[in-house]
Amino acid sequence: MNTQASSMQKPNAGAFQDWAQQQQARIEAVLARTLPAADVAPQTLHSAMRYSALGGGKRVRALLCYAAAELCNTELKIADAAASAVELIHAYSLVHDDMPCMADDDLRRGKPSCHKQYDDATALLVGDALQSLAFEVLAAPQLCANAHQQVQLLHMLAIASGSTGMAGGQAIDLGAVGKPLTQTQLESMHQLKTGALIQASVLLGAINGSTTQIKAVSEYARNIGLAFQVVDDILDVEADTSTLGKTAGKDAKSQKPTYVTLLGLVEAKAYAAQLYENAILSLVTYGEEARRLRELASFITQRQF
Amino acid sequence: MNTQASSMQKPNAGAFQDWAQQQQARIEAVLARTLPAADVAPQTLHSAMRYSALGGGKRVRALLCYAAAELCNTELKIADAAASAVELIHAYSLVHDDMPCMADDDLRRGKPSCHKQYDDATALLVGDALQSLAFEVLAAPQLCANAHQQVQLLHMLAIASGSTGMAGGQAIDLGAVGKPLTQTQLESMHQLKTGALIQASVLLGAINGSTTQIKAVSEYARNIGLAFQVVDDILDVEADTSTLGKTAGKDAKSQKPTYVTLLGLVEAKAYAAQLYENAILSLVTYGEEARRLRELASFITQRQF
Repeated sequence: MNTQASSMQKPNAGAFQDWAQQQQARIEAVLARTLPAADVAPQTLHSAMRYSALGGGKRVRALLCYAAAELCNTELKIADAAASAVELIHAYSLVHDDMPCMADDDLRRGKPSCHKQYDDATALLVGDALQSLAFEVLAAPQLCANAHQQVQLLHMLAIASGSTGMAGGQAIDLGAVGKPLTQTQLESMHQLKTGALIQASVLLGAINGSTTQIKAVSEYARNIGLAFQVVDDILDVEADTSTLGKTAGKDAKSQKPTYVTLLGLVEAKAYAAQLYENAILSLVTYGEEARRLRELASFITQRQF
Repeated sequence: MNTQASSMQKPNAGAFQDWAQQQQARIEAVLARTLPAADVAPQTLHSAMRYSALGGGKRVRALLCYAAAELCNTELKIADAAASAVELIHAYSLVHDDMPCMADDDLRRGKPSCHKQYDDATALLVGDALQSLAFEVLAAPQLCANAHQQVQLLHMLAIASGSTGMAGGQAIDLGAVGKPLTQTQLESMHQLKTGALIQASVLLGAINGSTTQIKAVSEYARNIGLAFQVVDDILDVEADTSTLGKTAGKDAKSQKPTYVTLLGLVEAKAYAAQLYENAILSLVTYGEEARRLRELASFITQRQF
């Protein structure tokens, strides 16, 4: 797949991959010590929480958080907490979304999804407890010297997760199955369903930024959030299940409106390329310090899985 | 039912009822303006959130929060936020607990439970979004002049809700069906399942308290949290469905271990009376300012529903 215009910047792919792998290993380690150990009671719940939140995924939200922290000189321990919090919210949403009453998906990150590996009741509680843990991590005593900043982090995460954020987007998605949507309606659904948490990932990482920096990364985040979903829709058509690690082709099967069904494949790719260009443009006044954000924009629009 | 020892203080029942009704009306109004309006998109989700969180229940957690705030001179707007947050967490837990994969209960507060009135997927998202909203309310900008205090409120709520609090207690409860438990095991299950949030309700309200006050209300909260559950188990045997507003006798039906199955009815009542006495004793150095907490201890152990 090539969703990008010819003018696109080619990052030093090797160096980006090294950085991404380092951050992925870092967030995995942070999450591993944040999640209660599997031998702490209640053991089944804790083991299922670790099963669902560890060992997989691209960790795009954590990477965005670390990259924004790099631009804005946010303290690493704050970036760690913010990256964990968004990944925990994301993990909880996947566990609940895979349940039989929602998307009913047996496969996640190449493994049986939580309710298949355990059971529905456990999956329900795993999602609930992962959400609480996300807020617990971000509310850790003395995380921020500036407690007002810490309250702001918590407020942003709560809004991004709630009924006018991620959970709201999922509700709109549920109601949209089999219905024709305009591009504006589709966009506003995705802006909530995946965009809100993607944007929060960037903005939490940027908590230490100046007003100008926050404005730039907000614009970046909005575009990259949409691009992420457009590419997701393209991959659902083009990739196979083993590459995705989740069931491919399920949008078409469930008659969900997608960017591909709405715009067609060629136009959807052109749209992803446009969103990528917009994201890059928003960072135009920044140099090396915004490099990881630029590379991530490329990674998100070029990814094959 | 009479769960109380003869030495028990008889509060001015009329005055307490007036106070309780005022606080119940107050929390209802606060929640009504906190929950997104039913005509704000996504409408079905918001209408289902309002259906589940408004118009019912004894609001014991809010009352405990306001009563502790009275003892500790906690600002009313902080008490409002704290009371809303604990009631939203409680409401979310009921919505999820009633779902078919959990307790599978069709009735809640005398009305069809959320998944019966809407559907399972909506109920799942309602619970998720109510949890996010609880944290959003408590993370409101400028809620506390002392932001460190606000972070502390958020941290306490997150721990009380999570895998070593309420959600953890539900997981232990799930695993305990049909199994014999000792009183210690039963106690530790309930200490998490209902005790953690009851205690948090008191401690959040007491955020402005002195170290001595916090110590006293912690002791009060621990006893009252347990008493609440013991009385719940007694009522499940003694009350009928129409009085309870939820299905009576379901513990026995589901072979759940309860204080009644473990201790017998007479001993369970004596135990509730003892816990009441302990709660009253913890407030012995306080006068009129702890009156509502004392009255609530009586209300919780004497309640018929």
